[in-house]
Amino acid sequence: MTACETRLRVRYAETDQMGVVYHSNYLIWMEVGRVEYCRAAGLRYRDFEQDEALHLAVVEAGCRYAAPARYDDEVVVKTTIGESSTRLVRFNYEIRNAESGALLATGFTRHIFLGPDMKPHKLPEKYRAVFGVAVNNRS
Amino acid sequence: MTACETRLRVRYAETDQMGVVYHSNYLIWMEVGRVEYCRAAGLRYRDFEQDEALHLAVVEAGCRYAAPARYDDEVVVKTTIGESSTRLVRFNYEIRNAESGALLATGFTRHIFLGPDMKPHKLPEKYRAVFGVAVNNRS
Amino acid sequence: MTACETRLRVRYAETDQMGVVYHSNYLIWMEVGRVEYCRAAGLRYRDFEQDEALHLAVVEAGCRYAAPARYDDEVVVKTTIGESSTRLVRFNYEIRNAESGALLATGFTRHIFLGPDMKPHKLPEKYRAVFGVAVNNRS
Amino acid sequence: MTACETRLRVRYAETDQMGVVYHSNYLIWMEVGRVEYCRAAGLRYRDFEQDEALHLAVVEAGCRYAAPARYDDEVVVKTTIGESSTRLVRFNYEIRNAESGALLATGFTRHIFLGPDMKPHKLPEKYRAVFGVAVNNRS
Repeated sequence: MTACETRLRVRYAETDQMGVVYHSNYLIWMEVGRVEYCRAAGLRYRDFEQDEALHLAVVEAGCRYAAPARYDDEVVVKTTIGESSTRLVRFNYEIRNAESGALLATGFTRHIFLGPDMKPHKLPEKYRAVFGVAVNNRS
Repeated sequence: MTACETRLRVRYAETDQMGVVYHSNYLIWMEVGRVEYCRAAGLRYRDFEQDEALHLAVVEAGCRYAAPARYDDEVVVKTTIGESSTRLVRFNYEIRNAESGALLATGFTRHIFLGPDMKPHKLPEKYRAVFGVAVNNRS
Repeated sequence: MTACETRLRVRYAETDQMGVVYHSNYLIWMEVGRVEYCRAAGLRYRDFEQDEALHLAVVEAGCRYAAPARYDDEVVVKTTIGESSTRLVRFNYEIRNAESGALLATGFTRHIFLGPDMKPHKLPEKYRAVFGVAVNNRS
Repeated sequence: MTACETRLRVRYAETDQMGVVYHSNYLIWMEVGRVEYCRAAGLRYRDFEQDEALHLAVVEAGCRYAAPARYDDEVVVKTTIGESSTRLVRFNYEIRNAESGALLATGFTRHIFLGPDMKPHKLPEKYRAVFGVAVNNRS
């Protein structure tokens, strides 16, 4: 899968007294985009945690803010996979105003896979396609 | 113990575009007050969960907003226990501006005790004093 | 209008370490329900604030939690107007699991209308129908 | 001023179902650290907004997560200024467990100064020392 677009509407709770969306909320929107990316690629992330006791733990996140999102705006989060291995995956995000198409932010998150013991864990083969890891990847 | 007062400072993230604190954050401040009440009464709530696998689950919450809290205000949460039994406990809260003493909100939360199976559980005797339950209470 | 149903999906950010949705988030979902109620009744709340400089300020909120919402659940917020006048409006909410229909919570919020000076303000006639106030209401 | 250390205690609301602090909350803690840095340097950020109608708008944020913060931990946010000019300022943050001293995260935020019209604005001379800008800086 190459990209997944998810729409959401800005909540009043997400604004701050500057009259725009408070900046940490973009990381939550990236989570929404990432989960929908996985769902579109065939993986319900809830099952990944519940059935396999595997987790995607965030090890780094970054965001550049280009223009403010405002209350009641519809925004589109476009999620892609940047790079991935059996240990790590990086997601990239573009957040745009749905109506105007204006770029609001670009960001990324890097994750490691954790096993049931919450320690680093090699991604099982059956999930590699979801995260863009070549199935015969030996890394 | 009769009452516990906890101070906190309003975060920018807690405001909304009306220029005041978004109303759901008062429930989080009540949590802060409740945890500090327990600590002052001798119970670190973290230990209650970790060591005993017991939980306080919220079954009802309410808040009346008297005046807005604003960014960077110091507020005082005064927490008391309203009523309690071996099954249930109610906390009451008064939230005031620390500087002026003006009342900002009053609220309450009602909780049940849950056991390791996340089902209702009778509060063990050793914790009854913390929650104001008479130690010989047979309810 | 009698009722408005809004769907949303539980975000990971909304869960807590008890493995369920943290209770203050239900108030945010009620906000989402209320805004969609207004939109369905013909009022974009953003315009109410921007064009008229009117606000709906929360003066009371309450919630009873019947069953926990969990990560990735789809929930339905059913919003109705409880009572209203030119000064006040009460919204009622029922929050259910979209798949099973199980009741998760019931709640309410009470609001007063504020004018540009952030003081109580009589609701202009053209907005009365939206909030269920009889148009010839003289209160 | 070289560095400012601020303590805060992890709230239950800040945890997620992985049993650790949800990653976007670190950006809120950075805000707490930044505001206390400014206060220690002689600037109450609230006055900066209210009296001068100036704002610090976040244009970029990043965080590397080294170890999870957990419920009820006390954490210390150490804030320093990375670089600054009359247009821009970068804050750096180190977040540690207060008890063990273990590093939890490092991060940064970059900001531009906005004027009353919410457009880029040159920082007035009287505030330059606070943000580490040489007072005779002509940039």
